[in-house]
Amino acid sequence: MIDIDFRSDTLTKPTDAMRQAMANAVVGDDVYQEDPTVKELEQKSAKMIGMEAALFVPSGVMSNLIAVLTHCNTRGCEMITGNKSHMFLYEQTGVCQFGGVSINTVHNLPDGTFDLEEMQHHIRSRDLHEPTTSLICVENTHNKCGGRVLPLSWLDELVEIGKKCNLPLHMDGARIYNASIYLGVPAKRIVQGFSSVSICLSKGLGAPVGSLLHGSREFIERARRLRKALGGGMRQCGVIAAAGIVALDSMIERLAEDHANGVALAKGIAALNHPYFKVDVKNMQTNILVFNVEPSKVNTSEFCAKLQENTDDQLTALGGKGVCVKAVPFGASLIRFVVNHHITPEMIELALQKITLVVNEYKI
Amino acid sequence: MIDIDFRSDTLTKPTDAMRQAMANAVVGDDVYQEDPTVKELEQKSAKMIGMEAALFVPSGVMSNLIAVLTHCNTRGCEMITGNKSHMFLYEQTGVCQFGGVSINTVHNLPDGTFDLEEMQHHIRSRDLHEPTTSLICVENTHNKCGGRVLPLSWLDELVEIGKKCNLPLHMDGARIYNASIYLGVPAKRIVQGFSSVSICLSKGLGAPVGSLLHGSREFIERARRLRKALGGGMRQCGVIAAAGIVALDSMIERLAEDHANGVALAKGIAALNHPYFKVDVKNMQTNILVFNVEPSKVNTSEFCAKLQENTDDQLTALGGKGVCVKAVPFGASLIRFVVNHHITPEMIELALQKITLVVNEYKI
Amino acid sequence: MIDIDFRSDTLTKPTDAMRQAMANAVVGDDVYQEDPTVKELEQKSAKMIGMEAALFVPSGVMSNLIAVLTHCNTRGCEMITGNKSHMFLYEQTGVCQFGGVSINTVHNLPDGTFDLEEMQHHIRSRDLHEPTTSLICVENTHNKCGGRVLPLSWLDELVEIGKKCNLPLHMDGARIYNASIYLGVPAKRIVQGFSSVSICLSKGLGAPVGSLLHGSREFIERARRLRKALGGGMRQCGVIAAAGIVALDSMIERLAEDHANGVALAKGIAALNHPYFKVDVKNMQTNILVFNVEPSKVNTSEFCAKLQENTDDQLTALGGKGVCVKAVPFGASLIRFVVNHHITPEMIELALQKITLVVNEYKI
Amino acid sequence: MIDIDFRSDTLTKPTDAMRQAMANAVVGDDVYQEDPTVKELEQKSAKMIGMEAALFVPSGVMSNLIAVLTHCNTRGCEMITGNKSHMFLYEQTGVCQFGGVSINTVHNLPDGTFDLEEMQHHIRSRDLHEPTTSLICVENTHNKCGGRVLPLSWLDELVEIGKKCNLPLHMDGARIYNASIYLGVPAKRIVQGFSSVSICLSKGLGAPVGSLLHGSREFIERARRLRKALGGGMRQCGVIAAAGIVALDSMIERLAEDHANGVALAKGIAALNHPYFKVDVKNMQTNILVFNVEPSKVNTSEFCAKLQENTDDQLTALGGKGVCVKAVPFGASLIRFVVNHHITPEMIELALQKITLVVNEYKI
Repeated sequence: MIDIDFRSDTLTKPTDAMRQAMANAVVGDDVYQEDPTVKELEQKSAKMIGMEAALFVPSGVMSNLIAVLTHCNTRGCEMITGNKSHMFLYEQTGVCQFGGVSINTVHNLPDGTFDLEEMQHHIRSRDLHEPTTSLICVENTHNKCGGRVLPLSWLDELVEIGKKCNLPLHMDGARIYNASIYLGVPAKRIVQGFSSVSICLSKGLGAPVGSLLHGSREFIERARRLRKALGGGMRQCGVIAAAGIVALDSMIERLAEDHANGVALAKGIAALNHPYFKVDVKNMQTNILVFNVEPSKVNTSEFCAKLQENTDDQLTALGGKGVCVKAVPFGASLIRFVVNHHITPEMIELALQKITLVVNEYKI
Repeated sequence: MIDIDFRSDTLTKPTDAMRQAMANAVVGDDVYQEDPTVKELEQKSAKMIGMEAALFVPSGVMSNLIAVLTHCNTRGCEMITGNKSHMFLYEQTGVCQFGGVSINTVHNLPDGTFDLEEMQHHIRSRDLHEPTTSLICVENTHNKCGGRVLPLSWLDELVEIGKKCNLPLHMDGARIYNASIYLGVPAKRIVQGFSSVSICLSKGLGAPVGSLLHGSREFIERARRLRKALGGGMRQCGVIAAAGIVALDSMIERLAEDHANGVALAKGIAALNHPYFKVDVKNMQTNILVFNVEPSKVNTSEFCAKLQENTDDQLTALGGKGVCVKAVPFGASLIRFVVNHHITPEMIELALQKITLVVNEYKI
Repeated sequence: MIDIDFRSDTLTKPTDAMRQAMANAVVGDDVYQEDPTVKELEQKSAKMIGMEAALFVPSGVMSNLIAVLTHCNTRGCEMITGNKSHMFLYEQTGVCQFGGVSINTVHNLPDGTFDLEEMQHHIRSRDLHEPTTSLICVENTHNKCGGRVLPLSWLDELVEIGKKCNLPLHMDGARIYNASIYLGVPAKRIVQGFSSVSICLSKGLGAPVGSLLHGSREFIERARRLRKALGGGMRQCGVIAAAGIVALDSMIERLAEDHANGVALAKGIAALNHPYFKVDVKNMQTNILVFNVEPSKVNTSEFCAKLQENTDDQLTALGGKGVCVKAVPFGASLIRFVVNHHITPEMIELALQKITLVVNEYKI
Repeated sequence: MIDIDFRSDTLTKPTDAMRQAMANAVVGDDVYQEDPTVKELEQKSAKMIGMEAALFVPSGVMSNLIAVLTHCNTRGCEMITGNKSHMFLYEQTGVCQFGGVSINTVHNLPDGTFDLEEMQHHIRSRDLHEPTTSLICVENTHNKCGGRVLPLSWLDELVEIGKKCNLPLHMDGARIYNASIYLGVPAKRIVQGFSSVSICLSKGLGAPVGSLLHGSREFIERARRLRKALGGGMRQCGVIAAAGIVALDSMIERLAEDHANGVALAKGIAALNHPYFKVDVKNMQTNILVFNVEPSKVNTSEFCAKLQENTDDQLTALGGKGVCVKAVPFGASLIRFVVNHHITPEMIELALQKITLVVNEYKI
């Protein structure tokens, strides 16, 4: 049986080059700031992002958590973010739980942005009945909105508002290099005007572990204290940073392949023209395909389960070899497929064969 | 000059009967649970609300704060409430700030309710990426929605969902007796199926200080610990509880007068038929009038300021005696007037004269 | 039966003058800062304490809580205080629970002070392994240490250290006027060099409810926000503030009577010369008597229970009329008696008769 | 110049076997619980410690933080630990900062234990003035107390008290295998009766990154949620877990060499018989040497600086080749040397030559 795993790009395993780099990494104790490989990674990443400094952390969740707690350093702070953002939906609201920061959500539009006029109504007054708005966060590319890339013009407008309102901006750029490749502009252009940005090495870029938080030198020094307190200070973590350097050096340009594969997948499903499965091909921008199913007709969990199994008829149709396609139900009416560097065009084709068989079982 | 203050019903001053009761109150140390007047108030209120026990606290903010922290007693809890609720908008998100409880807001409909189907999508899964939904809160009557009374049928439906999902319900019933009078049913009917309810003595009921939190005996014992920790344990507070007893005994029925005055005020403004000032008379239910102004034509702060001043022309029109009408701008397009027991029908009439003069200054 | 209650000075009931003042108080909504009586109390108290501003709050616990959270306004703060302080022992460590402030305790000496050299070792370095020391707190008079008054010279030395280390000082002055009367110096002398001080109106001063937090105008403005968030904002609380004004005006000088009664009580017990009951008469300074019992011979709870009951023999000895003396066991080897304005010299004498009978039941 | 680094055992770099294991590790996404190497490490470690389950985390700080927050899952919890424990001194009091847990410190005795009678006085009553004692923590071996091993008999007594008082026990066993080697008993014997234990792979055991928290299956499942929320969930962390497996398999027995080297170092300094440098040789048990200097004569920072530099005279005495000895000043009167697997007996000898030269510069 052939396994084709579209559940996430977090599932990517290190490349041989990464393993080699890890085995040979020159290391030191990074809590003492003596690991040269970590320093190299941080400096390289900071330069690419166009900020003064960077901090290597074990995960994207910690990177965002530290970012918010550093920006919102005093009592009674509130951050604004989209109601479909990863930070609100999938990080256990750690900023509230551990940091007492309240989250004020703005309705996310399908493209991952939100209405900037509406957002400004969420900014609090200085009245003593209200918390203090201290930060605005966006996510780019936007996971829940199907890997959509935030338009530069919208970001520029947001930066203007941030300046006007004296509010710092943080970007959850876990997949910022997907945005960069899609837009054809360097990452530093995308975060222009932001105070901080988090990126992940262990998603599309394929490194096994690690994220980086970027900001001013002063910001990163304060973030370092929080990293220590949260338990994110690691000793000879140059061993994993080494893989991160390989990721930044060699895995960004190739994201274009993932995007092409993603479009092929989207087109393939759309071409089935099945009324219960609606794929918005023209907005398929990066490596995440989120499409709608008709919830009264298709149970998303059941559909995903069917993609993994192989009936006798399917086995016959597939030429005798089973195909297990793994995707993720996103609530009651959405399915998510994520492409990553282990997925080849051949696998896309095979997956489409299997998807076609399963989709066509849903009689109109 | 005559002052007519519609800013809030929190402004109400104690009646003579209350002052008398306070002067004569039999008291003890309530932290030792030895104040008979506090006990009497708590038992009376619990009985009226139909719950086992009650706890006297210094404010509605503390009552809600304790309620949430008691329901959400473990790490990683989240509560659901309307996005226009007092608890989200005007209590400094204290439940986050002091208790690490995140707030998941559902869009409030104009009548103070929210879509129950939509609300259920806000209930979290048990996945480790998400906080644990632990409480649903509603506000009745709903301040920001213009004193609207939550329909009993909607509450009953919510109670069913709470049972089904095993989620406790808390009612911010700061003005629950306004709802009771409007509906013509006892308060205990309104909170049927709820786990806890907070009521305020110092709003329409006119007592100088105090709120009460109600729930099961076990809930209130845990709430008592939190009250102590937050600094809400007061010593001989029978002196203020005594006024609360007067409020419950003699100030509820008369809320009908406030409602009548409120309707008269709404009708009076509506009758001006001015296109920039839109009053929804048929939904004027209790003592809070919130109406829309056309924000491109009327600056709400300026309008409220004009209501307080008297031009020479106005003085003449008013027969020589100035009228200072105090109301509150609620953001850029809403104005709030709150009626309370100090406001007489004559004052409503006089206020309308003044409002008419100011409104008519806005040329179409 | 005659009841003589030494459990606490928090038990004091308002005087007739206070009740009168409460009944007649001119009030307004203090959340809107419109209550003239509250303002008068705050200004009077601030002047007496020699600080710019004051804030009226429902309890001493809230006053201390707000003080710490205001001083320790950023992440990772720590305060230093004595290990026998009320703030560490009896306030549910609310500063940790609600504000994430850690408490670093220094060993309290029997006189309520601590070794200043040792204390300085508790001040943290700026290393990222450590929280940030942000505040030093003392208690004066010191409850657990038997109402001891902190020596002015020690306070002066502490002030110097605070300046040198750039650390603000807070005084839990719940009973500061007992210290003032004992020392014969105004309260403002005692708090000289401190950044904030909390005082209680409802202990020895006899008001029913309320405490005051003092500091700079800027400090108090920030404290006001926290008071609101914690639910300590009360509406027409001029009714209780009025009693507080009476307390400050007329109840301070008379604390000397309490002290005299306290000394009489201490001497009376010491004079029994019973080896299991050791009273340090020469250090009996104010209204709190804490004395040692021999824990292997005397069970403190049992002893206190016996003081409340009257055997037939005791009834005879007491001339037929029972005497119920209430005191508090302070752990396994201490008993606490607190004198207050309801306790007369005659009651002291009667209590001593009863105590003598009970003590002498413990055969050597 | 020869560098001999005694600053910490956290500085240890991965062995070749570890690097090999990392390069070849079979990995998966551990957040999805699909990394076989991580599972293998967790199961191996749990078995060695004698507990049901284990959780791999990025650091010892996170392991302790998660342990406390999992045990202390409700509002108002307090933990008891020694006043010289790493958890109180060097983890930024994260349990307060992020989890609202207060720390109640007991005086540590020189051997890393505390008086168990005294400790029990720190357990709170259930009174509403007090937080709820919920956990007792110990550290073994005890860093600040010079790597001392807690006596089994003392631990057994503590376990009895824990049972009696219904309080769970957590061991910060960052260096538990040093204790195990010293005592000649398996680690599982040492933690007998404890509810949880944290161990570090990246100290004496030499792995580059990682710690493990152990407990019951139910405890670890709750800990997993907290790890995710704190940002400690790592993706293909089998790459570092692989080094951890090597550490557990091959680096424990050899700790005996570190202990022997430690004793040699201690004896060497003691043999100098210099009155300003007092080494307690008989209590040198494991790999941490903490010794006293006379603070009025020796500045600890200056002393450590001198150990790193080489004067011309020293160069001559050392045969022309400089020796840079790195140790850590532990406050004003203590110096810490930590031995690790990079330190050979020859390096101990050389270090002693250098230390002798520096010590003898302090004239009596």
